[in-house]
Amino acid sequence: MPRIVKRPDDRRNEILDAAQALFFERGYERTTVNDVIAQIGISKGGFYHHFSAKEDLLEGITARLAQDAVARVRDILEDPSLDALTRLNGFLARSRQMKVEDAPKLRAAFDVVFRPENLLLYHRINAASIAVMRPVLTGIIAQGKTEGVFAVPDPEAAAEIILHLGASTHDAVARTIAAMGTAEEDAAIAALDRRFQFQGIAIDRILGLPDGSLTIVEPGFTRAVMTAR
Amino acid sequence: MPRIVKRPDDRRNEILDAAQALFFERGYERTTVNDVIAQIGISKGGFYHHFSAKEDLLEGITARLAQDAVARVRDILEDPSLDALTRLNGFLARSRQMKVEDAPKLRAAFDVVFRPENLLLYHRINAASIAVMRPVLTGIIAQGKTEGVFAVPDPEAAAEIILHLGASTHDAVARTIAAMGTAEEDAAIAALDRRFQFQGIAIDRILGLPDGSLTIVEPGFTRAVMTAR
Repeated sequence: MPRIVKRPDDRRNEILDAAQALFFERGYERTTVNDVIAQIGISKGGFYHHFSAKEDLLEGITARLAQDAVARVRDILEDPSLDALTRLNGFLARSRQMKVEDAPKLRAAFDVVFRPENLLLYHRINAASIAVMRPVLTGIIAQGKTEGVFAVPDPEAAAEIILHLGASTHDAVARTIAAMGTAEEDAAIAALDRRFQFQGIAIDRILGLPDGSLTIVEPGFTRAVMTAR
Repeated sequence: MPRIVKRPDDRRNEILDAAQALFFERGYERTTVNDVIAQIGISKGGFYHHFSAKEDLLEGITARLAQDAVARVRDILEDPSLDALTRLNGFLARSRQMKVEDAPKLRAAFDVVFRPENLLLYHRINAASIAVMRPVLTGIIAQGKTEGVFAVPDPEAAAEIILHLGASTHDAVARTIAAMGTAEEDAAIAALDRRFQFQGIAIDRILGLPDGSLTIVEPGFTRAVMTAR
């Protein structure tokens, strides 16, 4: 069989694709570098040309996911006509991919990332996303402060706190996933909905906005994601 | 040498002490069950009588740390004379052990838990602490709502969000530790101090309190911890 020579970037992405699929399926702990090599059928030398350890794969995957997240909000950031509140609402909706149409894809990802054995994966993805998003959100909050709409002493600290609030729903989402298919299903979905509503109010208040200024999830989103197959 | 027979609880705690020391020193990933067994010189059977896997050790350690945290706030919770704001300020101070006198011990723990390789350990300790503290903080916030001082639609969601804010300072603390001994030391300490001030304001606002009602750290605390040896 002729050896297929790929461009380095293609090969690197192919390795990351395989590692991401395995980490999400088996968990980070239970996947070895040899599993990744076997999955795509490359040589050890070919692998180690791009990555020196399993840890590098996790770095590469989280960096790619974070870049994707920035790409999803780029048009909102670059539109000069938007005031800070509109920009922030757009940023929150896009960066969380919280569109009802994405529900089935999102549900599959949730099922994996919220498994207890994937806690490190969850926090690494979250930390990489926060590192990329912090300057972006800081810029939006500074704009709102200049416009006299947001009342915050320190836009960068506010950005860091707001981005970390995302992780505060981890346990509530995990509880709701666990309740699906049981008698508590409806109550769990309603509880998670209320949780997201309050998250929006918490961010309003941190920025000195009236309650209800920001929307974290669209109406019907929680049910759509949780019941998607 | 005569075999020393210990009470089961003593033995269990001795195993957890050894595991905790090794996890904090080498990191969770790099410690094996055999390392723990070798450290205290017990038989494999003696170990597996108490724990079935390394994961159980982490569970046991985080449960112990969380129980210690509740014990530190018990008198504040049980004193019927305290209004909710006084109780909450006491709770925040105690549960974070943010007393200047504890600085050297706290600094040693920080150096370990904030190492990148201990990220899973950090988040597991944090999650166990949040699970134990959530009902406690929910009770204090519900009291404040009844007293008409806190303006929160959902005390339980507010408690969960406020407890998660603790983890939002993880990166800021890690950055400050990394800056110690460099030319940026003073600036990093001042930045972390401002970060803690804003954290207090964020909690004030989430609870509908005037800015400055709650104190997260005592004056001089950040410098005392960061320069302690």
